[in-house]
Amino acid sequence: MAEFITPKILKGFRDFLPGSEIKRRDLVEQIEKSFRAYGFVPIDTPVLEYSEILLGKGGGETEKQIYRFHDHGGRDVALRFDLTVPFARFLAEHRSELTLPFKRYHIAKVWRGENTQRGRYREFTQCDFDIVGSDSPAADFEILLLMRSTLSAIGAGSLTIRLNHRGLFNRFLSKIDAGEKSPEILRIVDKLAKIGREETGRLLGELLGETRAQAVIGYIEAKGSYEDTLGGMIRAAGGDTPESDRLWMLRRFMNDTGTAASFTLDPSITRGLDYYTGVVYETFLNGLPDIGSVCSGGRYDNLAGLYSREKISGVGSSIGLDRLIAALEAQEKTTEKNTYATLAIACIREEDGGAYQHLAGRFREAGIACEVFLETKKLTQQFILAEKKGARWVIIPGENPPEGPFTLREIARRQDREHLSWENAVRIIKEAPASGL
Amino acid sequence: MAEFITPKILKGFRDFLPGSEIKRRDLVEQIEKSFRAYGFVPIDTPVLEYSEILLGKGGGETEKQIYRFHDHGGRDVALRFDLTVPFARFLAEHRSELTLPFKRYHIAKVWRGENTQRGRYREFTQCDFDIVGSDSPAADFEILLLMRSTLSAIGAGSLTIRLNHRGLFNRFLSKIDAGEKSPEILRIVDKLAKIGREETGRLLGELLGETRAQAVIGYIEAKGSYEDTLGGMIRAAGGDTPESDRLWMLRRFMNDTGTAASFTLDPSITRGLDYYTGVVYETFLNGLPDIGSVCSGGRYDNLAGLYSREKISGVGSSIGLDRLIAALEAQEKTTEKNTYATLAIACIREEDGGAYQHLAGRFREAGIACEVFLETKKLTQQFILAEKKGARWVIIPGENPPEGPFTLREIARRQDREHLSWENAVRIIKEAPASGL
Repeated sequence: MAEFITPKILKGFRDFLPGSEIKRRDLVEQIEKSFRAYGFVPIDTPVLEYSEILLGKGGGETEKQIYRFHDHGGRDVALRFDLTVPFARFLAEHRSELTLPFKRYHIAKVWRGENTQRGRYREFTQCDFDIVGSDSPAADFEILLLMRSTLSAIGAGSLTIRLNHRGLFNRFLSKIDAGEKSPEILRIVDKLAKIGREETGRLLGELLGETRAQAVIGYIEAKGSYEDTLGGMIRAAGGDTPESDRLWMLRRFMNDTGTAASFTLDPSITRGLDYYTGVVYETFLNGLPDIGSVCSGGRYDNLAGLYSREKISGVGSSIGLDRLIAALEAQEKTTEKNTYATLAIACIREEDGGAYQHLAGRFREAGIACEVFLETKKLTQQFILAEKKGARWVIIPGENPPEGPFTLREIARRQDREHLSWENAVRIIKEAPASGL
Repeated sequence: MAEFITPKILKGFRDFLPGSEIKRRDLVEQIEKSFRAYGFVPIDTPVLEYSEILLGKGGGETEKQIYRFHDHGGRDVALRFDLTVPFARFLAEHRSELTLPFKRYHIAKVWRGENTQRGRYREFTQCDFDIVGSDSPAADFEILLLMRSTLSAIGAGSLTIRLNHRGLFNRFLSKIDAGEKSPEILRIVDKLAKIGREETGRLLGELLGETRAQAVIGYIEAKGSYEDTLGGMIRAAGGDTPESDRLWMLRRFMNDTGTAASFTLDPSITRGLDYYTGVVYETFLNGLPDIGSVCSGGRYDNLAGLYSREKISGVGSSIGLDRLIAALEAQEKTTEKNTYATLAIACIREEDGGAYQHLAGRFREAGIACEVFLETKKLTQQFILAEKKGARWVIIPGENPPEGPFTLREIARRQDREHLSWENAVRIIKEAPASGL
């Protein structure tokens, strides 16, 4: 007896069948189209890198999750766990070949050996976009605007981008003599939405004592218009600063583009990652606030500091594709389609296979994706097959397949149009309203 | 003093800068468009799989090249080294969710720890397309036709697809009492182009003795029209067989689609891979025969045999993207472009950053990809930047940036058109002939 290997995949990894892969590709194509319309260009980097490059000076949580091993040559290598670290290495390595400001995007898979019990995947796709080599507020704003346009373009619905400025927060912390504990404070505040106000207060109290903890809570809980909130932040920080000027400039840009309603100034947004130094932001879908941020990022002033003396500053953001798809599905904003081909050509006689392909070629040239059926089954079976595959139309060839006349069946309506010429079939298919029923 | 980590990548791996990544993506998009027009649908599978799945019963050459390690959970895992084995596993695992015949494509990276001295990469991209669940010659032909259309669509120029039938070859080998040594013979013949006629004869002589070796050489060296060659093969195999009938049927399909001139029957094509059992083929660019086959494949009768009792037959092919790009570059059939944005908007005053984005948004809505410059440098410097980035046009905003009038500069011609309305600028950009000069 033959012994079979059980066909199975690793936990936290996924196969994508055509229906879900087409959905992903449609989404990625829309995202790319948006990036390209803004003049962002794609790059790619290796999936595998030296562990030293990816881990830098070593980092607790990351080090535990990374897929790391020794290759045939005994090199210590690892799968990338994000697209930011490889981009930093890329910038340091190719600095002289790039024209700054450099606007790039990178859509690719990354791997983390996370606990899958929390519904996390170990293989997932990130869509990163950054502008490096510009300190201008116009760069901050372009990333914010691009987040908004991209999410609108994919039909994510009404959204709110909450932004803050880490530098201004730090000025406030210095003012209350808590500047040295800024990294810990930022990390605690970052968890506010997750752990709640009470626990945040307790953790801050442990770190700073009651009075200063209350001051921090007061700062991060400010609510109101962008202008009022910013006024309060400036008072708390002791007056106008370059950071607050930047936030005013961003508000002007929002007004001049008619996008102000999409943005909220939220002093509790800090982002956990250590490399951010300026504006930071998260994006929430108004219809699904609980799903968390679907697109986040911020400004950094020394991205490639591990690899190069040259300070490379910039601003960027990242869309988590899997979370975004989950969000769109929860809002029923995706449609499942199983094929790109709206038309199928039925197979009547095996020896006419070439003629069917010739006919299909004419439809393809007219811009109609067209699948040729390969086996001479009963017509009713071929209609069922076409329906399963997601085609809308079937051509039933006649005596002279390449030229016609033939019958065009609209599957969902069970309606046949007979004695059609090729030209008329093309016209009917192209002019049909979008939905089959 | 700070110590830096040298930014470098692994040998055999590559970064893709925007110019080459745009070229790759343009090519992949054209390939996908061609696949989709034929009704082929995309799937995706994990980069990492159980080693047992990928290696099956263990295979010498593959086992030495595969990136294999133990993950955090102690699982024996590996990076995929092709897209065929994961597809076989996918078919066995998802058989009940798929409608046969199933036409799928998969474009993705694979990894092999090959010797890089031969100019090979350790990370490279494959474009696989297969039809499974049909034994019809129409399926064989559809793959052949799709190879031809896809390579034509990307401008690979005149090409020859050389095909053969392994089953017919085996009938001939049985006829000369060499049937049992078929796998070794196929492997030797597969290397004919690489090792030459003499060495092939010597190796066959060692295996079969002089007389039978000469018979094999005679069989594989047949030249002439498709019809003459097939006639000779049938005589050598002892008469008509289902395999030769299939080759006749394919010829009929070629004639009926007007594509016969692209196909040659070549009895020396065998393909080294063990799973092929029927028609096999390789594709050569007539302008660059030395680069070898850019697209190869064949028919198999039991792809998922390692994982399932159910025999899954099919036919497929694979484009090696890297070799194809090298071929196009050698024929100077690729153009380097560094951006998708043809238009840049110059930055005159920092505080007008929002107004520039508003203006850019109007161009983007009109279908013109448009980059906004972020820093107030001298105009001449902005023109140089636009040229470096590959934009063709620059808008120089006036007093009222969103509305105009403004100046439109065509960079390569150093030509300014002044006092333009937005509508006129759109018209000029859209109606300009394709080349800037």
